[in-house]
Amino acid sequence: LHSYAAVLQYDGTAYWGFQLQPAPQGRRAKPTVQLRVEQALCRATGQGRQALRVQAAGRTDAGVHARGQVVQFCCARRQGAAPLLRALNALMPPDIRAVAVQEVPLDWNVRYASRKTYAYDLHLDPVADPFLHRWRCHPRRPERLRLDAMADAAALFVGTHDFSRFANLGPDATRKSPVKTVLSYRLLPLEGGARLEVTGTGFLYKQVRHMTGALLAVGGGSLGADDIAAALAGGERARSAAQRNAFRGWQVAEARGLCLQQVVYAPWSSLGDLEPAAGGSGVVLAAVEEAPPGPRGVAA
Amino acid sequence: LHSYAAVLQYDGTAYWGFQLQPAPQGRRAKPTVQLRVEQALCRATGQGRQALRVQAAGRTDAGVHARGQVVQFCCARRQGAAPLLRALNALMPPDIRAVAVQEVPLDWNVRYASRKTYAYDLHLDPVADPFLHRWRCHPRRPERLRLDAMADAAALFVGTHDFSRFANLGPDATRKSPVKTVLSYRLLPLEGGARLEVTGTGFLYKQVRHMTGALLAVGGGSLGADDIAAALAGGERARSAAQRNAFRGWQVAEARGLCLQQVVYAPWSSLGDLEPAAGGSGVVLAAVEEAPPGPRGVAA
Repeated sequence: LHSYAAVLQYDGTAYWGFQLQPAPQGRRAKPTVQLRVEQALCRATGQGRQALRVQAAGRTDAGVHARGQVVQFCCARRQGAAPLLRALNALMPPDIRAVAVQEVPLDWNVRYASRKTYAYDLHLDPVADPFLHRWRCHPRRPERLRLDAMADAAALFVGTHDFSRFANLGPDATRKSPVKTVLSYRLLPLEGGARLEVTGTGFLYKQVRHMTGALLAVGGGSLGADDIAAALAGGERARSAAQRNAFRGWQVAEARGLCLQQVVYAPWSSLGDLEPAAGGSGVVLAAVEEAPPGPRGVAA
Repeated sequence: LHSYAAVLQYDGTAYWGFQLQPAPQGRRAKPTVQLRVEQALCRATGQGRQALRVQAAGRTDAGVHARGQVVQFCCARRQGAAPLLRALNALMPPDIRAVAVQEVPLDWNVRYASRKTYAYDLHLDPVADPFLHRWRCHPRRPERLRLDAMADAAALFVGTHDFSRFANLGPDATRKSPVKTVLSYRLLPLEGGARLEVTGTGFLYKQVRHMTGALLAVGGGSLGADDIAAALAGGERARSAAQRNAFRGWQVAEARGLCLQQVVYAPWSSLGDLEPAAGGSGVVLAAVEEAPPGPRGVAA
């Protein structure tokens, strides 16, 4: 058995998120990125779907994009990385591209990233660009948005907090820790807009879209920086379903603005002194920091 | 009666071109940009579709985009330009935007442009960008494309020629002149690609895509600059249907790469010393030269 990691970029507009959705009875499975990747891999390798077990670093939601998604899968026979990359791109639809493929140790796990970076892109011109509307949120009255207040409030998220109030937590909420660390949260200029870029060790379900929604409420003046601080401080008291479902002072920001930019892993050495795969740097890196749309990622 | 001009930008991927298509019997009309603009204008002005008579500077084909399309329409009652712009953008789908609206003299005609600029965008990285594939053609073996040879061959088109061999001419081909003037044809760098930008006084049906196809054949080495020169010189002998349908040495370049960038009109004064509309500069200008996607056009 051989294990591979691939870096994917996709325009998520047409997909029901990354993860495979069970088909409603008598119907086809909804198109997801995972479905398209598995279909291409089956044809490229001649393997059955079950054997591949495609897993992703971040299970992006419906409509969310990626510039640096990392996926992992197994192959019974050794594959050349370059032919596998070409075959994937020949067999996947044009809104999903593989930009790097690399063999990884069998005990390497795509879920154990050391940090992830998400970008949330805003369009701030009065008239939204018809070529960008798939990837940028166009807030109401963009000319009134106070970007400086948003940048200041974003800094409040940096650090280790209980993010319970900034997530959609399921019934198993108590099983996983809602304490996460945000390493940086910046507001960057984009042509005609702005980007909120957040890096953290991990994120709860819909956490980035909750944080963005809160920051947009701050920018619009309906929420103050002190409300953000209070919601962060009050995280541990928000565990009941009623509290979680109450209006929190912001709307979850829409999916279209969100993009998984980069996933960073520790070098193999820290996973047990394993040899890096041939040609590998010892780190699977989705080294793609640019804006969607912008230049392409690392070549294989 | 009042006449208005509007500058439109659209992502043409989802549309059957600009012009209204007759509905096949028992079916709905195919979605075209004109259909969506007319539906929005009817709702915005309360007028019937017939009264509007929306006309475009260039009837872009299925899948072709625009950053500076200019359209003209009539309204029985005077409309404020700014409210009309807002209403249009509220009522049109997000892949069509109006970036400027202005009242024009009743005898002004959107079809009488003094020049038009089209851009044809190529993606030249080995792996095409999934965020750009809707607007860029990704030629086979882009790493082997000889851009310098393409730039040299593009210069051959500049001037006044019979472009019969570089067009799809219908049965009424003899009714209109196939002699057109190309004012400039440049190869510009794009991040991860290149743009072929051509400006002319007017273009035949599919002329830009024919010229692009010929230039791609030159870049790929299957055609020489002398073949281009010969096809231009032999234009007047290519009027028979058989000659027009014969393989010419190139494929018509695909629609996705093409974008109507700018339409320029002579000042009102040259149309009979009419006063420019309030706030107008005397010229309806789609002054949008940037790449799709890029910054937005002129504000109203």
